[in-house]
Order: sequence, then C-alpha cells, then structure tokens
Amino acid sequence: MIKTPYLLFLGDAPDHLAVKVAQGIKDWRPENAVGQLRLDGCKADLGLTDMTLAQAKEAGAQTLVIGVANRGGTISATWRAVLVDALEAGFDLASGLHNLLRNEPELVAAAEKHGRSLHDVRIPSVQYPIANGVKRSGKRVLAVGTDCSVGKMYTALALDAAMKEKGLKSSFRATGQTGILITGEGVPLDAVIADFMAGSIEYLTPDNDDDHWDIIEGQGSLFHVSYSGVTMALIHGGQPDALILCHEPTRKTMRGLPDYTLPTLEDVRDVALTLAKVANAGCQVVGISINTQHLSEAEADAYLAEVEQRLGLPAVDPFRQGAARLAEALAAL
Amino acid sequence: MIKTPYLLFLGDAPDHLAVKVAQGIKDWRPENAVGQLRLDGCKADLGLTDMTLAQAKEAGAQTLVIGVANRGGTISATWRAVLVDALEAGFDLASGLHNLLRNEPELVAAAEKHGRSLHDVRIPSVQYPIANGVKRSGKRVLAVGTDCSVGKMYTALALDAAMKEKGLKSSFRATGQTGILITGEGVPLDAVIADFMAGSIEYLTPDNDDDHWDIIEGQGSLFHVSYSGVTMALIHGGQPDALILCHEPTRKTMRGLPDYTLPTLEDVRDVALTLAKVANAGCQVVGISINTQHLSEAEADAYLAEVEQRLGLPAVDPFRQGAARLAEALAAL
Repeated sequence: MIKTPYLLFLGDAPDHLAVKVAQGIKDWRPENAVGQLRLDGCKADLGLTDMTLAQAKEAGAQTLVIGVANRGGTISATWRAVLVDALEAGFDLASGLHNLLRNEPELVAAAEKHGRSLHDVRIPSVQYPIANGVKRSGKRVLAVGTDCSVGKMYTALALDAAMKEKGLKSSFRATGQTGILITGEGVPLDAVIADFMAGSIEYLTPDNDDDHWDIIEGQGSLFHVSYSGVTMALIHGGQPDALILCHEPTRKTMRGLPDYTLPTLEDVRDVALTLAKVANAGCQVVGISINTQHLSEAEADAYLAEVEQRLGLPAVDPFRQGAARLAEALAAL
Repeated sequence: MIKTPYLLFLGDAPDHLAVKVAQGIKDWRPENAVGQLRLDGCKADLGLTDMTLAQAKEAGAQTLVIGVANRGGTISATWRAVLVDALEAGFDLASGLHNLLRNEPELVAAAEKHGRSLHDVRIPSVQYPIANGVKRSGKRVLAVGTDCSVGKMYTALALDAAMKEKGLKSSFRATGQTGILITGEGVPLDAVIADFMAGSIEYLTPDNDDDHWDIIEGQGSLFHVSYSGVTMALIHGGQPDALILCHEPTRKTMRGLPDYTLPTLEDVRDVALTLAKVANAGCQVVGISINTQHLSEAEADAYLAEVEQRLGLPAVDPFRQGAARLAEALAAL
C-alpha cells in the first residue's frame, strides 16, 4: 500500500500525453494530489500548485509519485538527483516505469539510509495464493472488453465515482499500473506468475459487506490472443455478479494484432457470461460502456441508442455522460 | 534444452509413486533412459540397469535427472553428495523439484567448477515474447480437459507415439515439469509471467512443415477457476487446428475445488471451440480421450460407446487402447 497523499512528479515531460498517469491521479483522486513538481523544460501542467519538496512535505504529501513516462526508458541523472532529494526529505517513491527504482543503487542506498520505501508498481509485492474459488460475501462487477485499451479502467473509475455519488458502497480495484498509482493499491496482474493470477484477484477482492461493490478494473480481452489468459483469470478470480461490456466502435483490428478483427458485443457477452457463470452462476451482463471519442456527438448518440436497443441494456459513454446509469443497473440487481 | 540420454536418479524413494517422473521418462522416451541410480533404502525399481555414475557415463548418459519427489521438500545431505559427485563426473543435473538446484550453494559451486549445467525445469529459462497471433505453418493439436489431472499429458504423449507409428510427423510439446523432463525441453507454463503466457506457447510451437503436427500438452481447464487463464493462453498461443477433449468420468468435483462440479464434454467443446476459432477459424474438435482407470473394462467400453455416439467423435482411452484412432482423426483433417 502506497502512502497518500502524493506530490506528483512531472519531470521534464515533453508534452501532456507523457503525464497521463499524473492526470489520472488528479482526475480520479484529487484528494491524493497535493501538488506538482516540474523540472526545467517541462511542457505539461496539471493545473496543480507547483511545489518544492519542502513545500509539499509541509502540505502533508507522503509519497513522490513519478507521474510521467521517461524518455528512452532510463532514469536520467537529473531525475535521480530529485528522487534522492525526495527520499532525504522523507518521501517514499512510487513508480510504474519499466525500469525499476529498486535497480537504481543510489535510490536503494538513499531509501535505506532514510528508512523510506520504493514502490515499483509494475511488479507484485505480495506472494499471492492459488485461487480456491470459495464464494465470497459482497458484490463484484468486472469490465470486460472487445479489445485492449477500449476504456475499461475509465469505465470502472467512473462507475466507482457514480456509485459513491449515489451513496452506495464501492471500491475501485486496480489491476494495472496506472490504477494502482491512482488508488495506492492493487494487483499488477500482467506481471503475476500464471498459477497465481486468479488467486491474486481473489486476494484483491476479499469478503465484504453484502451491499458493497468491488469495481474490478478489466485487462485485455477474451478475444485478444496475446492477453486473453489474463482476462480469463479476472473472470474466474473475480467471480463477478455483474459484467459491463466495453467497446470502441471505430476500431477495425485488435490492438497490436493487425490480422484480427474485433468481436461483436454479442460475441463477448455470450462467451464471457458462459465462463463467468462457472464461478458465479448468478452473473449477469448489466450494461455497456462505449468509448465514443472518435465519433461526433450526434454519431455517438445514434450509436449508443442503437446498441442499447440491440442488446436491451443501458449503453453509455462514461466520459461524455458519466456512469450513473451503470450504477443504477448495479443497484437494481 | 537438456542433454540426453539420462541417468535416472531414484534416490531413497519410499515407494513407486514417488518416482513417477522417472517412470514417465522410461515409458515415453526409453531411449533417453540409460539406467537408474538408487540409494540405500530405495523402494522403487524401474527395471532399468542399476548403474554407478562412472558406468552411466561410460554408457553415454549426459544428464542426471532427479526422477523422484524429495521428502519434506528439502535436498538431503545424502542426495547432495551424490549430486556433487555427478557434477564432478561430468553430468549436468535436471530437476523439477520445488526447491531449486540453483539455490543450493554447493551444487552451484560444483557446477561452475566443472562447467556443468543445472536445469530447474519448474522455472522458465527463456525470456518469452508477447504473443503476436501471426498464423504459423504446420499443424497443431491441443488437449483440453473438463478438469485438471484427467490425462491430458498422457493423451498427448500417446497421440505423439501413435502418429510416429503411422509414419506421420509429430512433436510432443511439453508445457509442464514432467513433460519437460521426459522430452528434454518445453515451457513450464504455470511459472510464466501472465503477459508472456501465450507468447511462450507461440515460441514452443514455431513454424513447421505443412504436414507436421505439434501435439501440445494441455494444462488446467477453462472450467477450473484456479488455472483457467493458463488454459486460455494455450488455446490462443497454440492456435490449434484440432482439439481433443479429455475427461475422467467418475470425478464428481473439480480437483481442489469441492464446491465445483465438472462441466460436460459438450460444455467444454462449445466454449473451447468458440475461443479457439479466434486464433484459428478452421479449428475442429476431432476426438475424445477418456481416462477410465476407475471403471471396469465393461463399464469403460460402455461409457466410450455412449460418448462416441453422443458427440459423434472417436472416443478412446489411450491407456487401454492406444491413441491410433485419434491419430487417424488428425491425419484425416
């Protein structure tokens, strides 16, 4: 578990796209984002107060989160100097970078000297159990997609926000690096050893109040041949009571697989539900989340209406409309 | 790749069940089993020539394979002394034990000193790629089960033997520890990192002659909530042209999951085929393999006839009958 709140390190980000992790934290957990730390030449701005390490510490920040992708995949000398200063100033560090903080001897030495923690959220910090399939109390919903990167994390975060707005009990359960940094905890599922994948999701979504919903972040797709095993483990480890189908309607081929076309929403519904019922016989598909970013508003409205009619389920774009109707569908279960 | 042939180390096996890895090697690759090495008190006997290290070396053995489960999960001082002697005598070592050879400093030192290799087949020795889903030449068949431990490895090995008997080109492709020790190579799929599971199976079953069949060892079951992600990765990474369904008809609940009943063969056929067609639109279910060890011969015959009629596919117990009819079904594709 990463200590919150955070100071968000934007480094020398070349553009706004490079700080999307920090943007996600600011959007979804603004209470965790005390301020931003930018270096000379930083081209991104989250609109948070620019702070020195000392100012952020004074304001209560506990962890410096690397909210920016690094150029060339290495931690530069400039960054390293700031990170060492942060450890000295009493911050933990958290990072989702491919190259790990723990592989930087200077950072390891400084963390040890000052008693601070280095969180590399790309790799598991827990020895997960093998899944036992035992029915857990509380409710769970999982976002499943026609493809990777169609908006499953966004849908889950928006649904969690909509649930809380309605006064319902829910927890967003992160299964990827960005989600883990946003919430401060979760399972980096793509880095878990095969035998323990489903068990890691059982661990992530333990027994809870009967009226509490875990909103589980989806990964991959049952129809994406590179990552379908990860999706399968989410469906069986999560033993969801409800599924939400996610789709990006302008996508022609599967992400990274130019020879593969996308399945239909009906294809995903049928096979995901069949498999979900193995772990939870009562599982239902309750709604559709469409990423309409590449459609005009009129096109989006028409597409959503058509899907809603065709599948007989509420269909929304949570970015344009929020996820209130999906939350209502869960509450009605 | 483990150097063959082997001297099979049976240690101080308390009974025959403890040497089932060695038995598998002797049964399926007798040409790899030069002899057996037994310690005082060994209660198992494979019927191979008992050999000293020197005799086995003389007879051509290259690797000492630990073909026995160790008691208490530790490598005893007695074992260690023999293993060090083997390294000195010029043998590599291979093991599927949970506790790793590479974690034994004495073995590491001796291996280094004598230029020998330590093969821990439980953990991957390769950095596998992420699956790319590109169609490969050659043919592939995968055994998929209603449950774990219903005879998928046995079926695949028997099918490989039946193919070779008919003069057809085939390779057994191991995906578990025992299979890897039998053949000297393979992917320990349950120990692969989630993101690389399907890619490891693509790596295991590369382009081949158009009339060559990879016989891929199955793992888990799409209906086993602990391991279904592993099965899913086999289906998509293997992009099989043919599936063989495996079942143990007296099993009441899923292995290790007392709350879960077994799916029907039809259930497995339908969902496995739907998912297999994502990676290979021409995939077909071509046969059924039934493990009838808990049935009398008359019961087995009646059950096989019933299944064959019900599913309209050849149904055999490869242990009782061999896998010739499954090989014919592949050849007919």
